[in-house]
Amino acid sequence: MLSKSGVKYIQSLYHKKFRDAYGVFVVEGPKLAAEFLTEVPALVKEVYAVKSWLKNNTALLEPIEDSRIHAIEPFELEKISALTTPNQVLLVVAYLSYPPSDNAGITLLLEDIQDPGNLGTIIRTADWFGVSNIVCSMATADVYNTKVIQATMGSLLRVHIDYLPLTDWCRQHPDIPVYATALEGKNLYECTPPENMALLVGNESRGVSEALLALSAHTITIPRKGKAESLNAAVATGITLSHFTFSSAVR
Amino acid sequence: MLSKSGVKYIQSLYHKKFRDAYGVFVVEGPKLAAEFLTEVPALVKEVYAVKSWLKNNTALLEPIEDSRIHAIEPFELEKISALTTPNQVLLVVAYLSYPPSDNAGITLLLEDIQDPGNLGTIIRTADWFGVSNIVCSMATADVYNTKVIQATMGSLLRVHIDYLPLTDWCRQHPDIPVYATALEGKNLYECTPPENMALLVGNESRGVSEALLALSAHTITIPRKGKAESLNAAVATGITLSHFTFSSAVR
Repeated sequence: MLSKSGVKYIQSLYHKKFRDAYGVFVVEGPKLAAEFLTEVPALVKEVYAVKSWLKNNTALLEPIEDSRIHAIEPFELEKISALTTPNQVLLVVAYLSYPPSDNAGITLLLEDIQDPGNLGTIIRTADWFGVSNIVCSMATADVYNTKVIQATMGSLLRVHIDYLPLTDWCRQHPDIPVYATALEGKNLYECTPPENMALLVGNESRGVSEALLALSAHTITIPRKGKAESLNAAVATGITLSHFTFSSAVR
Repeated sequence: MLSKSGVKYIQSLYHKKFRDAYGVFVVEGPKLAAEFLTEVPALVKEVYAVKSWLKNNTALLEPIEDSRIHAIEPFELEKISALTTPNQVLLVVAYLSYPPSDNAGITLLLEDIQDPGNLGTIIRTADWFGVSNIVCSMATADVYNTKVIQATMGSLLRVHIDYLPLTDWCRQHPDIPVYATALEGKNLYECTPPENMALLVGNESRGVSEALLALSAHTITIPRKGKAESLNAAVATGITLSHFTFSSAVR
């Protein structure tokens, strides 16, 4: 049974202001929930789930105190879920804290990525290519936004994510060359970047800002054969990371 | 001024059943509207726009009969728009008819892509890489779904899209080798496919079906360095198309 204040509390977590105030965010669905319960059980603050899910997942729930586990009805899950089709289980999880980053390999710099789905897909793509550091500009979508969380497919647990002014990051790491993606630049397939580098991806409509282009050592472009005006930001990130990771001449 | 029946008509177009019945779909926003008015003015059946947009776009509206141009108020646009932030102009456009396909170059086969955003992004990506033929399985999302249209960014006008059972397509084109994307296959970067080929991308969660794998000449995989379980379907399509178009040894 879910109290009125319980419903209100979870609904409030769909707003950044309240997430930041409580330091928690929402994770939904059996697959993601299993990943968080396995990898970071100490961060799982509350489990709301239908009875059948609770019955079938006792091992996953082993590390969670009973008082934090709430059996609810499907109609109650609907009230607190942000999914079009609520899916058995919803967790309230504490904000992740990452160890300090070592900036090894490729660091991904995201400037003002607005679409939560794009941000989540970029985090998932970074995880696929073994990128463990992402630095987001302050105006990038919030990583704890429920659409980001769902699109990351759990990769959030494996990628170190910071929010800070990217100009500051560039100035703090003068020895790491920044490769900015743009519509006019050097052909990606003619680039052989060093092992330690930063890949900078710009806003979906404006691209990389002049201020950051000025701090970038190189500007690169994915060659085009057809007529589309641009590529989706997550697709462009995937193509570039894949090439840098697997097909560059130096690797 | 927008009539009640006008509002009802446009709202009905957010359902496939009514789109198919009338043979029309909705296009929104100044950028996309300009592209459709320029490229296929004869297919534009109705223009609903706020006065300022109409005043600033008289050249675009030149080929459109006055009776099809409707000046509406922002609150009326809100009623008929599917966008979170309605954006000045909404077109009703007749279904596109493509000339018969020549199957030259890369043909993209999509099996049951469910997410409209993914489908739109895949069409946009195909257009970037000069792929002019996409064949969708019957269970793939509807290309005239408003989320697909908005995500294509106009590429819909340049890519030939068919819906038919993919097993039929494979049997009708025995001389075109099919490269299926899968989690277990030959390393993408070790593949040098012929110029005429088909790239098969499977459903977001199930991947390519057994039936279609059996009809595929090759199974390919994007190599992984990190730990994500899979890549987003549009990202995987972009990485594969980019490699096949620009970095294959044969090109």
